[in-house]
Amino acid sequence: MIDQVIAHVAKNYDAYLERLNAFLRIPCISTDPGAKAAIRDGADWVLRFFHDAGIDAGIYPTQGHPAVIADTGAVSAGGPTILVYGHYDVQPVGDPKLWQSGPFDPVVRQGRLYARGSADDKGQVLTHMLAAEAWKKVAGKLPIRVKFLIEGEEEIGSPHLGVLIEKERERLACDYVCLSDTAKFSEDVPAITYGTRGMLYKEVVFTGARNDLHSGTFGGTFPNPANALVELVTRMKDAQGRVTIPEFYDGVSTPTAQELDALRRLPFDESAYRESVGAGGLAGEQGFSTMERRWLRPTLDVNGLLSGFTGEGAMTIIPGRAMAKVSMRLVPHQDPAKISAAFDRFVAEHTPAGIRHEIKEFTRCAAYVCPLENPGLQKAATAVEAGFGVKPAFIREGGSLPILPLFKKVLGAESIMMGFCLATCNAHGPNEFMVIDDFKAGIRTAAHLIAKMA
Amino acid sequence: MIDQVIAHVAKNYDAYLERLNAFLRIPCISTDPGAKAAIRDGADWVLRFFHDAGIDAGIYPTQGHPAVIADTGAVSAGGPTILVYGHYDVQPVGDPKLWQSGPFDPVVRQGRLYARGSADDKGQVLTHMLAAEAWKKVAGKLPIRVKFLIEGEEEIGSPHLGVLIEKERERLACDYVCLSDTAKFSEDVPAITYGTRGMLYKEVVFTGARNDLHSGTFGGTFPNPANALVELVTRMKDAQGRVTIPEFYDGVSTPTAQELDALRRLPFDESAYRESVGAGGLAGEQGFSTMERRWLRPTLDVNGLLSGFTGEGAMTIIPGRAMAKVSMRLVPHQDPAKISAAFDRFVAEHTPAGIRHEIKEFTRCAAYVCPLENPGLQKAATAVEAGFGVKPAFIREGGSLPILPLFKKVLGAESIMMGFCLATCNAHGPNEFMVIDDFKAGIRTAAHLIAKMA
Repeated sequence: MIDQVIAHVAKNYDAYLERLNAFLRIPCISTDPGAKAAIRDGADWVLRFFHDAGIDAGIYPTQGHPAVIADTGAVSAGGPTILVYGHYDVQPVGDPKLWQSGPFDPVVRQGRLYARGSADDKGQVLTHMLAAEAWKKVAGKLPIRVKFLIEGEEEIGSPHLGVLIEKERERLACDYVCLSDTAKFSEDVPAITYGTRGMLYKEVVFTGARNDLHSGTFGGTFPNPANALVELVTRMKDAQGRVTIPEFYDGVSTPTAQELDALRRLPFDESAYRESVGAGGLAGEQGFSTMERRWLRPTLDVNGLLSGFTGEGAMTIIPGRAMAKVSMRLVPHQDPAKISAAFDRFVAEHTPAGIRHEIKEFTRCAAYVCPLENPGLQKAATAVEAGFGVKPAFIREGGSLPILPLFKKVLGAESIMMGFCLATCNAHGPNEFMVIDDFKAGIRTAAHLIAKMA
Repeated sequence: MIDQVIAHVAKNYDAYLERLNAFLRIPCISTDPGAKAAIRDGADWVLRFFHDAGIDAGIYPTQGHPAVIADTGAVSAGGPTILVYGHYDVQPVGDPKLWQSGPFDPVVRQGRLYARGSADDKGQVLTHMLAAEAWKKVAGKLPIRVKFLIEGEEEIGSPHLGVLIEKERERLACDYVCLSDTAKFSEDVPAITYGTRGMLYKEVVFTGARNDLHSGTFGGTFPNPANALVELVTRMKDAQGRVTIPEFYDGVSTPTAQELDALRRLPFDESAYRESVGAGGLAGEQGFSTMERRWLRPTLDVNGLLSGFTGEGAMTIIPGRAMAKVSMRLVPHQDPAKISAAFDRFVAEHTPAGIRHEIKEFTRCAAYVCPLENPGLQKAATAVEAGFGVKPAFIREGGSLPILPLFKKVLGAESIMMGFCLATCNAHGPNEFMVIDDFKAGIRTAAHLIAKMA
C-alpha cells in the first residue's frame, strides 16, 4: 500500500505546492498584536484542510491564540499512536527592506520557495498533513492512529499550550510525538534530532532621567542608562565567553567520550558552515568545539538593543531609557526557573545607583533529550531514509522547542524530530526559504513513517 | 535713548511673542534630509525680518544649509563692532509621543512657551534681532555697528560654516562675537558663559553574518555583533568612570584653586539639579564634584543604540548588525583630531575576529574659553544685570559651540555668551520650552548691550 501512497503523492507535487502557497500567504505573526485576524485565518485554514481530507478536527481556544487538534481515528490493528505536533504561527518579518520578495508572497527562485513560514513551520507541518490525506485518499484509512496538534503560539514560547495539553490529555494521548520543526544536518544529509536546547528570553529596561537630556549641558553628571546597560550586558560574560550569572552552569553535564566521538564523526565543514551565513568568523565559549557550542553548551546572546537617537546623523542626548533583549539557550539539567531568578538578581545587583531597572520575561523552557535507543526514533530513521534516499544523521538542535519537556511530562511520550529544512533557511531572518525537493521528500518521509510505525 | 528703546520693547512684548511663534512653526530640522524646504523657509523668515527692520541682509549659500548675514552699517562714533551669532536650525523631535503638544505648534503653559527651538536657538537669537529692530525704530540708527550671522547647521556641527567665515571674513569682521545659545545659571540667576566644551560625535557599526541568524540554531558559534558592541563601549570607560581611550586626557588641565573656589561659591543645589530632570541620582568620573564634571571634565556618553529586534515580545535572533552612537565632550587643550584618531584605533583594536567595523564621524570641534578679564565680557555682564535686574554668574557650559574656536582663529574675536534659557529647558529632548519672562528680559538685555558697548 505504501507504494500506491507514494505514487499518489508524486502525482500531486504541484497541487501540494499551491496549497502550501495559500497557507503561507496568511501572515500569522503570533508576536504581533495586530495580527489576530490572520492568526484566526491560519487556524481556520488548518481546520478546513482536515475537514476536506475527511479527518476529524476542531479548533481549541486558549487564553492566547487557538490550536487545531485532529485525529484520524482508532485502528483495529493496534500499533502505536503518533501525535504530530507543529505550528501555524510565524516569526515577525523584521526589516521588510531586507526581503528580496514579500514575506507573505511566496516566490520560487532556484528550486527554493521563499516566504515567512516556508520552513518554520508551515512548510514542514504540512508534509505530515498531506501524508495523512494521501493515506486516506489511497487506502481509505491509516494503518496507525495519527493525531495532530497544530498550535499558534510556538514563536512566542507556547505560553498557553501547557494548559491545553493538560486539559486535553486524553484526546492527545499517544505513544510518540512526531514533529518536523528542525533542520537537516546539511544539504545532502537529512537528520533525526534527538535533543533541543531550552530557552530563557528576557528584556531589561534601564531608566534614568525623566526625558532624554542634552549631553552637553548634563553630560558627566547623571548616570547614562545606555552606558549602564551596555556595561550590565558585558558583565554577563567573562573574557572566555562564559556566562557569569551565578548558578548558570549548575547541572550542565560534561559530554561523554561517546557523544564527543559521534559529534566528531559528523561530516561537518566549519568553513562551509561559516560561509553559509556570510559571517567573518566563528566564536563562542572557549574550550569547546563549534559543534559542542552549537548543541551541547548553553549560550547568552543579545537579541535586540534600543536607546536614544537611532536616526541618521547626530543628536546629542543622554538617553532617558535603554532596552536590551537577552536570551539564553539552555542544555539538559539546567533549571530555567533557577536561572531566571539568578538573572533577575544579577540585573538588580548590577543596576547602578540612580538607574531604575525593569525586567520582562517572554520565554522560559527546559532543554529536551530523547534516548538514542528509543525504538520509535530508530523506526523514524528508516522512514527518513526511505523518503530522502539517504541515511539520516542523529543530531542535536541548538534551538528550543518548549513543548517537548511538556509532552514528556503530561503525555509520557518521547518526541521524534524529523527536520526537512536547512539550518541556513533564514528561519527567523529575512528571505526564509524551503528547498522544494525537501518539501517533496518530507511528504514521502511522513507517508513512510505511517507505514514503518505500523 | 536706551530708556526709550526699553519702553518701546516693553510695549511690544505680545507682538514679539507672535513673531517668535511664527518662527517656531517652521520645522527647520537640520539633520533631517526631508526638511530642506523648511530649512529654506527658516532662512527666508530671518532674511525678511531684517529687510522689514530696514537692516541690510542677504542669504549666503553653503555646501549644506544657507546662512543669513545682516549688518546695521558703519557708525561715525567708532566703538566696537559686535557680530551676533545664532542659528535658525533645530534638533530632531525624537519620539513625538513624548511631547505634550506638537513640537512645531508653540503653546504657552504656565508662563513657558513650549516648542522645538523655543530655547535652542530661535527664541534666543530673536532677542538680538528684536533689540536691533527696536534701536532702528526708536533712534533711527544703532550707536554701534551690529552684524548678524544666523546659520542653519549648528545642530549638525556647523560643517560648512568655517568655509563661509573664511570667505566672508571681511564682511564679518568684528571686535566681539555675541551669542545667546547657552543657559542661565538657574531660574533666578542669569549668566555670562565664558567657556564651552568641545565635542567628538561618532557612530560605530559592527556587522557579523549576512542576515540576522536564528539564535538557537546558530547561538554560541558565531560572534554576536550586539554582544561585541556593548563590550566595546563598556571598555571605553573604567570602573572609576574614566575614559580608557589612550591619549584621551592629554592636555586636560587641572583646575586652579581660584577656579574651584569660584565653582564652589556658585549657588548650586545638587538635589534641586537632580530633581529638575527627574533623575534617580548623580554619577560620573570619580574624584570630581558635580560642577567640575559638568563644566571642566571631558565625558563619553552613548547617545543611541540599535540592534536586532526592538519590537514588543521575543524574536530569537543573533543580530546581523549593531550600532552605537557615542559622543565625547572635550575641555580646553584636548585635541579633537588626535582623540578622533585614538578613538578609531581603539575601536579597530577592540573589534573581535569575525566582526567588521565601520565608523562615521558627525561632529568634531574643540573647547573654547574666553579670558574672564576681557572688557567686552565685563560690559556684557552689566547689560545682563540691566536686562534681568540681577547680577549674572560667570559660568562654563558643558555643551559645545563648534563655531567659537573658529571665530577666534578666523576673525580674531573672543565670544561673549549671554544665555537666556534654563538648563532644564529640554533643549534637545521633548517639550523644549522658553520662559516667557526670560524672552522679554533677553530682549531688554540685548538692547542694553548695544548701549553698554557704545
